Amino acid sequence: MTDASNRAPNCGRRAPETIALIGKYHSPEIAESLRLLAAYLRERNVTVLIEEETARNVGAPLVSSPLERSDFASIGAQADAAIVIGGDGTMLNAARQLARYRVPLVGVNQGRLGFMTDIARADMLGRMEDLLEGRFVPESRMLLDAEVLRGGKCLVSNLALNDVVVDKGAIGRMIEFELFVDGEFIYNLRADGLIVATPTGSTAYSLSANGPILHPRVAGIALVPLCPHALSNRPILIGDRNEVEIRIVHATDSRAHFDGQVNVDLRQGDAVRIRRSEYSICFLHPPGYSYFGMLRHKLHWSEQPKGH
Amino acid sequence: MTDASNRAPNCGRRAPETIALIGKYHSPEIAESLRLLAAYLRERNVTVLIEEETARNVGAPLVSSPLERSDFASIGAQADAAIVIGGDGTMLNAARQLARYRVPLVGVNQGRLGFMTDIARADMLGRMEDLLEGRFVPESRMLLDAEVLRGGKCLVSNLALNDVVVDKGAIGRMIEFELFVDGEFIYNLRADGLIVATPTGSTAYSLSANGPILHPRVAGIALVPLCPHALSNRPILIGDRNEVEIRIVHATDSRAHFDGQVNVDLRQGDAVRIRRSEYSICFLHPPGYSYFGMLRHKLHWSEQPKGH
Amino acid sequence: MTDASNRAPNCGRRAPETIALIGKYHSPEIAESLRLLAAYLRERNVTVLIEEETARNVGAPLVSSPLERSDFASIGAQADAAIVIGGDGTMLNAARQLARYRVPLVGVNQGRLGFMTDIARADMLGRMEDLLEGRFVPESRMLLDAEVLRGGKCLVSNLALNDVVVDKGAIGRMIEFELFVDGEFIYNLRADGLIVATPTGSTAYSLSANGPILHPRVAGIALVPLCPHALSNRPILIGDRNEVEIRIVHATDSRAHFDGQVNVDLRQGDAVRIRRSEYSICFLHPPGYSYFGMLRHKLHWSEQPKGH
Amino acid sequence: MTDASNRAPNCGRRAPETIALIGKYHSPEIAESLRLLAAYLRERNVTVLIEEETARNVGAPLVSSPLERSDFASIGAQADAAIVIGGDGTMLNAARQLARYRVPLVGVNQGRLGFMTDIARADMLGRMEDLLEGRFVPESRMLLDAEVLRGGKCLVSNLALNDVVVDKGAIGRMIEFELFVDGEFIYNLRADGLIVATPTGSTAYSLSANGPILHPRVAGIALVPLCPHALSNRPILIGDRNEVEIRIVHATDSRAHFDGQVNVDLRQGDAVRIRRSEYSICFLHPPGYSYFGMLRHKLHWSEQPKGH
Repeated sequence: MTDASNRAPNCGRRAPETIALIGKYHSPEIAESLRLLAAYLRERNVTVLIEEETARNVGAPLVSSPLERSDFASIGAQADAAIVIGGDGTMLNAARQLARYRVPLVGVNQGRLGFMTDIARADMLGRMEDLLEGRFVPESRMLLDAEVLRGGKCLVSNLALNDVVVDKGAIGRMIEFELFVDGEFIYNLRADGLIVATPTGSTAYSLSANGPILHPRVAGIALVPLCPHALSNRPILIGDRNEVEIRIVHATDSRAHFDGQVNVDLRQGDAVRIRRSEYSICFLHPPGYSYFGMLRHKLHWSEQPKGH
Repeated sequence: MTDASNRAPNCGRRAPETIALIGKYHSPEIAESLRLLAAYLRERNVTVLIEEETARNVGAPLVSSPLERSDFASIGAQADAAIVIGGDGTMLNAARQLARYRVPLVGVNQGRLGFMTDIARADMLGRMEDLLEGRFVPESRMLLDAEVLRGGKCLVSNLALNDVVVDKGAIGRMIEFELFVDGEFIYNLRADGLIVATPTGSTAYSLSANGPILHPRVAGIALVPLCPHALSNRPILIGDRNEVEIRIVHATDSRAHFDGQVNVDLRQGDAVRIRRSEYSICFLHPPGYSYFGMLRHKLHWSEQPKGH
Repeated sequence: MTDASNRAPNCGRRAPETIALIGKYHSPEIAESLRLLAAYLRERNVTVLIEEETARNVGAPLVSSPLERSDFASIGAQADAAIVIGGDGTMLNAARQLARYRVPLVGVNQGRLGFMTDIARADMLGRMEDLLEGRFVPESRMLLDAEVLRGGKCLVSNLALNDVVVDKGAIGRMIEFELFVDGEFIYNLRADGLIVATPTGSTAYSLSANGPILHPRVAGIALVPLCPHALSNRPILIGDRNEVEIRIVHATDSRAHFDGQVNVDLRQGDAVRIRRSEYSICFLHPPGYSYFGMLRHKLHWSEQPKGH
Repeated sequence: MTDASNRAPNCGRRAPETIALIGKYHSPEIAESLRLLAAYLRERNVTVLIEEETARNVGAPLVSSPLERSDFASIGAQADAAIVIGGDGTMLNAARQLARYRVPLVGVNQGRLGFMTDIARADMLGRMEDLLEGRFVPESRMLLDAEVLRGGKCLVSNLALNDVVVDKGAIGRMIEFELFVDGEFIYNLRADGLIVATPTGSTAYSLSANGPILHPRVAGIALVPLCPHALSNRPILIGDRNEVEIRIVHATDSRAHFDGQVNVDLRQGDAVRIRRSEYSICFLHPPGYSYFGMLRHKLHWSEQPKGH
């Protein structure tokens, strides 16, 4: 493996020559989009890599030579950009896999506009010209790095682009935990759980739990309690350089979730330590993209201003 | 079994001659309170029944004759009132067990005032005089009757005094369900779940989920979504005679909970049908009890009015 | 004035022979709708009354004889139903004016579906046939009766179909008030104000302030604090027979609002006493109307159930 | 006026030699505290300045020579620190007056711990030793700079330490406004208003309106709607370098408030432009101060961690 993490990040600053295609997990219906994209890119002399799970999923014809079938490490070493076809969930996974390699992501949705997949399938090929000519706009998004500690030892560690959630399990009893920021005790809380969200995650689960929306450029982390027993526990914003620790004081059944995609069982006494990751992920947005424009659409906010 | 459900309810209207004692589950520390109460009542010629789990829990000396050791059916057939020693959870269980027998409940807390256990342990014996002389104030609380249906057949049914909750399981993925009221489709929702709460339950889990507080005399049922994906889904109050049905449209892992104490696994296609129970439970409150006074204390609302 | 308040209410149970038309205040653009309706009804031998402000507003040609121009008292004495053309605000005013005369209301909106104006202008004439043939579905809605007391004397009294709001004035300082229910002190609160809402009002201002949605058949009144200083003050539901009193303890500037349309200045020491009105207003809904269907549309809840 | 704004800020880094005393407006009950403080400081050879309104308020004996009676400009030019005696409101005013002069503030409360006045009156003199020996901990807080524009011209400008609020006036009708961030249209909203809050203001009015708590070190500004008509409008966090503009589209009656202490009438077409001020205010906290400790106390969060 090339030491990809040391190569200069190419956050959209030059035209990509090698592009990886990553498709939604277990979704053969995206095969046609992938084929169209691959054909379009090859015609323009772009080297195309197909993520190996995606290749298995959509069938052989997509891959024209064995060299194209790549795992994430290999994509990380070679690709100048990755095009993700699916929904926000596909982006989350790709971001966690590729952040350390500094490969920027382009998101193509298969129907509804996503918070992260901002290119409509219908516009897909038209947008590729913009991408190949370097007209996409880069935007950096922070990730979280979380460790689960048991008896002081790291049991498992994971990245998260949206959020790390510690919550109750299936039995449905509240958990009791202590929250620490930079080692300082903040509170002891009985609740369904706590969401630790990045700005990217602030429009996902956290928003359903009455968390605030954080613009991607805000250097902050949101701590949003889930059904807190104490009514004065409200969402708290801390700096992106603060370290959060959640210690399970009492729980018959508890779990930590990373982007809602990976989870780990927690026991009483376990701690989850969360800090900003040293890696960020770069999104490449098509010209004209606006974060607030996307929100306006997704959240059904009012249309254009009157008389302007 | 006597057909206890047909006997006239004695909701505090005459002095109780037979009293059952029910203690917090697995809590030997209440043995002393139970012994004191039993001795006090026997001295005043009250027939004392000890709930069998409670008897096992606190040890033999409490029970003076085998006749006193009673299961809930037997308490239901004989007792004029039951004194519950523990917390709100103990009351919930006793209420579900005894509602059909119309045995009124008196709640004694072991430390902190509960929403339902309004007599402090320190005042316990003093209050017994009021109880034996018929000065307690009865208050009726509705229960819910819930059935879990699979393939149209009733899998299990349960009562709930606080709430019936349908929620996601441990994997942490939102569930998708449809809500019907009296057979009419209301909405399709992706969320962590839905709380169906009685007025009694409105100050429990529902309150943590931003549900409204319902005075016990409001004849209504609260439908409170848990972390709804759609931001316009808010708590809804329907009448106490409406029937609610929740149909699981999509869930990898889901459960129904009854008062947070009993739970049942749900599968895609299952339905949970909830209506007001034909039974109510009667609480007996000591003289001077005030629902709002209790709330003021529990929720740290402002003290007494100024200048009144 | 005929003692209209004693006549039997005609809540849609027989075909109306005399119909009043009431238009949105200061809105000449509804003249055409009014003319079409009047002509349609006259052709079918219905006696048409035009509310006097409406007549002035849209110009002479609408009124074919001086007898038709009626004030609300006269409409109350003669009309079997009133058709309101405008928005929810026009309905609120008509309801407060006509509730005592038991004249049922039909609501026609001029564009967007309202919470109360459920007939689209485009369907208006088609719906009239249903109305004249008695196929409309009556629904009764409670009103509130509020008195402002100063020095123990009633300064002013008003009805409200949506809500009575006591809030701070323009200076922007929180007010401090005491809340009583049936004479019992509930709490002392510093806040921007308090909304006292009917089920009808629960989808209006109260909803913006995080109040719950009350189905019209719930016999309850919602007490919803506006920006309460104490974080544990939440919306409370009380019974429709409870009397609410709000006493201004401290305010540099405060007001009481009735349906957001009429307001009264309040001083320190003033009290606002609110109870359910002896009058209700009857809405006549077209066949097929559904309260939840309307909510689903207005609040952008999910569409029809899948596979049903 | 000395060009005080250019002098090096003394944010607690050396022992203060000149200290100003600023008392709560119209509160003669603080005279005794002021006298005690003045006497204590003079004994230790500190030059004491008395803010002129404060001097007028508490009576002559406090001021030992005419030179001590100072306006804010003069305090700004001479004082190494200002001790504010009163509540958070007194701190807000002092901060707006002194921020441009970089005079750090020490807050003494007269009863209840404030969010900003963290020294109890009872501890006051004991704490002075820490202050004079340079043991206080400085903390910088951002301010907002707001201009009201009419017809493109600046009508008035003001600083705010807590918040700039644009809201409806006394008539109680919602206002309609457009929100812009850095010139980009964000949304058009009908609401009671909008709070634009600093981290310091996030625990004040904004918290009552369901805004998030921002740690003082978060470089962000919270935009918190007041009773928004659209249910999907939630609090938004933007960066501290973003410029906010609120344009009044429709309002019969509207106002802009600065820290809830100064207000300006707004008309349709007016705009309020808000950005981070070039000035910050420095708070000096006694040794052992903790922001989260203060929050825990003020918001009744749970006590110390168990078993640590």
